[in-house]
Amino acid sequence: MHAVVTGGAGFIGSHLTEELMRRGRQVTVLDDLSNGNRSNLASVASKITIVERDISRPYAELFEDTKVDELYSLACYPRQISFQNPRRDCEVNLIGTINGLDLARKKGAKMVYASNTGIVSNPKTVPVDETFSPNPLTPYDTHKLASEYLLRVYSKVHNIRSIVLRFATVYGPRQRVNEKLGWRPVIPEFASKLLRGMSPTIDGDGAQTRDFIFVKDIVSGVISAMESNSDEGDFFILGTNSETSIMDLYRMISETLGVRIVPSHGPRKPEEIARMRYDYSKACNRFGWTPKTTLAEGLRQTIEDLKHDYQNMKLS
Amino acid sequence: MHAVVTGGAGFIGSHLTEELMRRGRQVTVLDDLSNGNRSNLASVASKITIVERDISRPYAELFEDTKVDELYSLACYPRQISFQNPRRDCEVNLIGTINGLDLARKKGAKMVYASNTGIVSNPKTVPVDETFSPNPLTPYDTHKLASEYLLRVYSKVHNIRSIVLRFATVYGPRQRVNEKLGWRPVIPEFASKLLRGMSPTIDGDGAQTRDFIFVKDIVSGVISAMESNSDEGDFFILGTNSETSIMDLYRMISETLGVRIVPSHGPRKPEEIARMRYDYSKACNRFGWTPKTTLAEGLRQTIEDLKHDYQNMKLS
Repeated sequence: MHAVVTGGAGFIGSHLTEELMRRGRQVTVLDDLSNGNRSNLASVASKITIVERDISRPYAELFEDTKVDELYSLACYPRQISFQNPRRDCEVNLIGTINGLDLARKKGAKMVYASNTGIVSNPKTVPVDETFSPNPLTPYDTHKLASEYLLRVYSKVHNIRSIVLRFATVYGPRQRVNEKLGWRPVIPEFASKLLRGMSPTIDGDGAQTRDFIFVKDIVSGVISAMESNSDEGDFFILGTNSETSIMDLYRMISETLGVRIVPSHGPRKPEEIARMRYDYSKACNRFGWTPKTTLAEGLRQTIEDLKHDYQNMKLS
Repeated sequence: MHAVVTGGAGFIGSHLTEELMRRGRQVTVLDDLSNGNRSNLASVASKITIVERDISRPYAELFEDTKVDELYSLACYPRQISFQNPRRDCEVNLIGTINGLDLARKKGAKMVYASNTGIVSNPKTVPVDETFSPNPLTPYDTHKLASEYLLRVYSKVHNIRSIVLRFATVYGPRQRVNEKLGWRPVIPEFASKLLRGMSPTIDGDGAQTRDFIFVKDIVSGVISAMESNSDEGDFFILGTNSETSIMDLYRMISETLGVRIVPSHGPRKPEEIARMRYDYSKACNRFGWTPKTTLAEGLRQTIEDLKHDYQNMKLS
């Protein structure tokens, strides 16, 4: 069984690649290394193929003489910087999808597409499930939503098998701030500042909530979705049906690290979503998936990894 | 008052450009001439600026030293050929929108965006109004829908003034089959075949209906929308709230031409929409627009123009 993972050298992609290897797949990773890193794949590098490739360029040609059974489309341009370069966002997050559909069509592969719960912004109530109307707040949201529609179009018209997963806020080991890209996921951002004795900045008052989901739970959901019989471009939320405010998260990270620093507060961003909590029962009912890792346990593993990284940096 | 019209050398764009001139605007047309034609602007060519330009390349730089008050975004890649080149469709129909938003933002211009009623496909009832859920059937529909979302995102986050218009099936003088592109709008397709004594091909049984709207009615709607106080990316249907089957249309064209030929029937396309009839009361209520031209009268003018063209071709 041959699986192609776009963004496979990234944070989520590398965990997925490892798990696919563990389950006996042959894996090819496509990654332009703008946000991914070969070191994320150190443990499996000798057993997989890594191709440095921007998915906004057609890539079906790479597999002309190879069968492809599964396409995991994870490569993306980050939401946080989507307004800085909306054209690039469109190229990666939408034209990249068209290129994935091309490959899936040519190879008869099933495609899992990583979308985002942020497509439904500022809902009137939580938890949000799959019946809520989309309300994009950034070019990223718009292009992810368009990709979801496109998968259904190709399923209807060209019978391409696919499934869409809307991820909640994923965290875990290997997630890093990318200074060059300007990408600052909240947990590594807070923890790395605190480890350096600096005061992290919270957007607004920090009462906004997120549904944090551990990367290994996402990986199990992604593979369950691929192996399920849902293949008409239908979409499923992967979340935990719980919410944590940014202030509470800050306290948990600070306690886990044993570092006490008063955070600063910056302006609230207009595209900021107030509350995030996502009902995953559709995924649970359809392919028996539930998240297993508590935030406390996930944070422990995540911070362990960040501390390790920090200590290595100090030593080098 | 300076108006920029993308796709201004095209069928609808050229009628709009003429009307804007008539109303005293200074007009710059951007057109890559892939489907537009300089001859469409013959009557106003000496009084306007025509720039040959693909809107999928950023174009705000063209107007660095010029004020721009109005941006009419009409350039598009046609729905009919959207599956043949979905990447190109995305570049024109979505990245082109990003480039338009860039210009609108830099210049403080208001943007009118030409979208399409086909975004709502195969509704359970007709007439369709603005409350119906989108259900794209082609890459074209998907990219038009994404553009609509993007205009609202930019309105919310960057206060860009904009308005979206969903056109029904527009027809009128200057609409031509484009053999090179593979674009075959139904009225010129039928009429030009009949004029040549050939049998036109109808997709499926011809019972599918369209809401045909005359180009001059669209032009008045577009300008009314621009001049209205709706500027938060809201969307409005421009249709006639009536429907005509393709078979009935065929008979009307055949009678107007005085040519009787039995049509052929081809396979029905999967992206074909069964019924189209669009309620325009939101546009009527908000900016007082109603369509004025009957299909009989519009067809008369359209066929007059096609006959004229055909006779010129025969003479040359």
